[in-house]
Amino acid sequence: MISPTIPPTISFTMTMRLEYPNLVGSLRRILSIISELGGDVGTIDILYKDRRRIVREVSFAAQDLEHAHRIIEGVKLIQDMKVIEARDLALQVHQGGKITMSSKLPIETMNDLSLAYTPAVGRISQLIGKDPEAAWALTIKRNTVAVVSDGTAILGLGDLGPAAAMPVMEGKALLFKHFAGVDAWPICLDTKDPAKIIETVRYLAPSFGGINLEDISAPRCFDIEQQLRSELDIPVFHDDQHGTAVVVLAALINALRVVGKSMEEVKVVVLGIGSGGTAVSYMLLNAGVQNLVGVDKEGIIYRGRTEGMNMYRRQFADRTNPDGVEGDLRTALRGADVFIGMSGPNVLTPADLALMNEDPIVFALANPDPEIIPELAAPHVRVMATGRSDYPNQINNVLGFPGIFRGALDVYATTINEEMKLAAAYAIAEQIPQSHLNPEYIIPSVFHPNLAYSVARQVSEAARRTGVSRNIRSEYARQNA
Amino acid sequence: MISPTIPPTISFTMTMRLEYPNLVGSLRRILSIISELGGDVGTIDILYKDRRRIVREVSFAAQDLEHAHRIIEGVKLIQDMKVIEARDLALQVHQGGKITMSSKLPIETMNDLSLAYTPAVGRISQLIGKDPEAAWALTIKRNTVAVVSDGTAILGLGDLGPAAAMPVMEGKALLFKHFAGVDAWPICLDTKDPAKIIETVRYLAPSFGGINLEDISAPRCFDIEQQLRSELDIPVFHDDQHGTAVVVLAALINALRVVGKSMEEVKVVVLGIGSGGTAVSYMLLNAGVQNLVGVDKEGIIYRGRTEGMNMYRRQFADRTNPDGVEGDLRTALRGADVFIGMSGPNVLTPADLALMNEDPIVFALANPDPEIIPELAAPHVRVMATGRSDYPNQINNVLGFPGIFRGALDVYATTINEEMKLAAAYAIAEQIPQSHLNPEYIIPSVFHPNLAYSVARQVSEAARRTGVSRNIRSEYARQNA
Repeated sequence: MISPTIPPTISFTMTMRLEYPNLVGSLRRILSIISELGGDVGTIDILYKDRRRIVREVSFAAQDLEHAHRIIEGVKLIQDMKVIEARDLALQVHQGGKITMSSKLPIETMNDLSLAYTPAVGRISQLIGKDPEAAWALTIKRNTVAVVSDGTAILGLGDLGPAAAMPVMEGKALLFKHFAGVDAWPICLDTKDPAKIIETVRYLAPSFGGINLEDISAPRCFDIEQQLRSELDIPVFHDDQHGTAVVVLAALINALRVVGKSMEEVKVVVLGIGSGGTAVSYMLLNAGVQNLVGVDKEGIIYRGRTEGMNMYRRQFADRTNPDGVEGDLRTALRGADVFIGMSGPNVLTPADLALMNEDPIVFALANPDPEIIPELAAPHVRVMATGRSDYPNQINNVLGFPGIFRGALDVYATTINEEMKLAAAYAIAEQIPQSHLNPEYIIPSVFHPNLAYSVARQVSEAARRTGVSRNIRSEYARQNA
Repeated sequence: MISPTIPPTISFTMTMRLEYPNLVGSLRRILSIISELGGDVGTIDILYKDRRRIVREVSFAAQDLEHAHRIIEGVKLIQDMKVIEARDLALQVHQGGKITMSSKLPIETMNDLSLAYTPAVGRISQLIGKDPEAAWALTIKRNTVAVVSDGTAILGLGDLGPAAAMPVMEGKALLFKHFAGVDAWPICLDTKDPAKIIETVRYLAPSFGGINLEDISAPRCFDIEQQLRSELDIPVFHDDQHGTAVVVLAALINALRVVGKSMEEVKVVVLGIGSGGTAVSYMLLNAGVQNLVGVDKEGIIYRGRTEGMNMYRRQFADRTNPDGVEGDLRTALRGADVFIGMSGPNVLTPADLALMNEDPIVFALANPDPEIIPELAAPHVRVMATGRSDYPNQINNVLGFPGIFRGALDVYATTINEEMKLAAAYAIAEQIPQSHLNPEYIIPSVFHPNLAYSVARQVSEAARRTGVSRNIRSEYARQNA
């Protein structure tokens, strides 16, 4: 459902190559047609010009593909206008993929070859063969994360298969590198069988210092992560669960500071108890929340409910809803201080929000369309956050995973535990000085300077404190081993 | 076994940091001690100097680690000499690994993020979900190769495990990139079970445009490769087999030109029928050799032999040794035109070579120590090649695999077939103009300009000719799909 108010977006940006007679007013004509049809004009360039004709490239952003085509058709209607081609920017930047690998060593001479490959590499292999921990010092392991998906829950799009997951995992890898210097590599698996996924990741683990699971559908993701965490001696982290939970907690820490309430006293309603909703709920409990009520398609989750239950929902019922409230979302919202939506678009009305306690905090995180549009919610909320970049307070996983893995890798951590995640959440929250906090600024921008490295320091510290860091002889190379 | 004649090597290069009184003649003293003890002095640097003392870094190459330590001990004996530290160059360059990943796109603004990641990436995923072939255009698949090993046959060192395989696979990946622009990524597997290796590679295949198997022990490697070739729609290539075979054939093509013999008329003896020896033998048969005799630890392989046989040896016996010769290596060598050693050090004597036909061609490829030292063989051979860079005619896989995969990826090939391998071998051979061919120059240097790209063109052409290329809409991005 595209709302008519949705503005043109960089996602649907087209570059038209246009050829037309070189007459005064032609460009103005083109630009006004784009604007009249609702497009946002971007760059304008001249490729060729003589007295009679001109070739230009004009780019514009549209709401969606259909809208973009309408604008192109509109431009075509200009007299003597020839649209030579129209390039789709998103397809263009994805051409050939978004990441690449490169060598850290020069290979210009036979000596270079002998050092980087045979025969010198044989010495390094023998050394690691005798002492496998040396792999942390002498291979890429210490800075390398596998971004693993089976493509069953790609963004909000569902099961599109492993090939379709690649652009997302490449994007994730790129963010890992850009924000935290982590060498991440996408691995999209051609199996949906949890046992096979577990086995595959276990087998490929020696090459990596961490595993980021991504876009694997619930409840399969729970088992897969749990099993891998118990089998592997490197961090295994399902970002859709824990990355989301860390960032939501960070935002909630600051939102509560704004409204002057504490974790212990608030009632929190979480709508949507999939992988993200479950992890958010558990993390909030670990952060001190006492009264948390989960709501799914069958209504409030309570101990003893029979509809739509499974092992994970029963565990959830055991740990939440201390008052044993039954009923629907509206029942849950009565007297709630915090609403966290991880469900779908437009499921909340202003009247629903009116049921909440004073100074309500609303995180409407369904993507791309939130549970309630901020404009509609505004009169009824004190602090609002969404997953979108075009409203204040964007809750974006990019705030979390790069720094979390950076911190784990920096101390060769064996796992990412609850303390490390809590440390990450507080580190993100504390990027904003208390005096700067306000209802429209509870969470830092993804471009907040050095955010990931600040998070990493706290995560490393928590890993050391809880005994999950490794002491690798970092000066290994200096030893004449 | 270190031969006393082996020169110091870059593999065992040490950089000493030395502090000593600033007196005339001190440096000369240091350098002459290094030389007297058999070291090769390399770089010399000054880190600090005042009237009384001086701090220098002096590097030298040694034969092996023990030799290097002897030299350091020798320098320590100089009066008032302090060896502050001694760094091992090979360990130093391996610190943190040899490859890295990077982003092809800038991530400086929210617009950049929206294009490279959500929301724009959702469009790309949907497009590939509908048409999986679009992954070749819009993801890294088209330029990405997995370098897969289980660490069971690392170089000549045996089974050292997957962690120890990493430096070799990183080196391989780095050569892929340097010589042919291929984005290769190492995947070392924590299983030796062929069925599990097959399954794992099959599951991770969607992210890759090709699979380079490496350092997997025989005979497991045969099954693994064969099964994966039949299951996957991307090239699967065990470089220890086929890469070696391609380069050996290239060298033989030119060696035969030098001696004026043809494939069809020569008798070839192959010693060592492991993964490399088997593949070399079969490739020579495919290139026209009629009379090829294989020799393993049990002697000549012939149809009906009972000792040391298995399925692969029986197949080998069926395809080779048309005269049904039985006996030992010396029997095989009688009247042979070509000897190809893929076995171990110093197993051949000058007297053995004297049994061969006129103008014998000897490829002694055992590494690092050949079947016979070239100095010993010289009086008895016309053309000699080894796997070493310190003798003429180095037979090095680096001549093959980068260009072979470049050629396969360039046409989105579904496989690397026999015709493509033959094309690669001829392309390598033809880098040397006929008029330049001589007994000491039958194979180009690994630094031969544009070698990999010349090979790639021929490989691509062979793929197209044999119908294993794909027609991917390469201008996919320009379509407003």
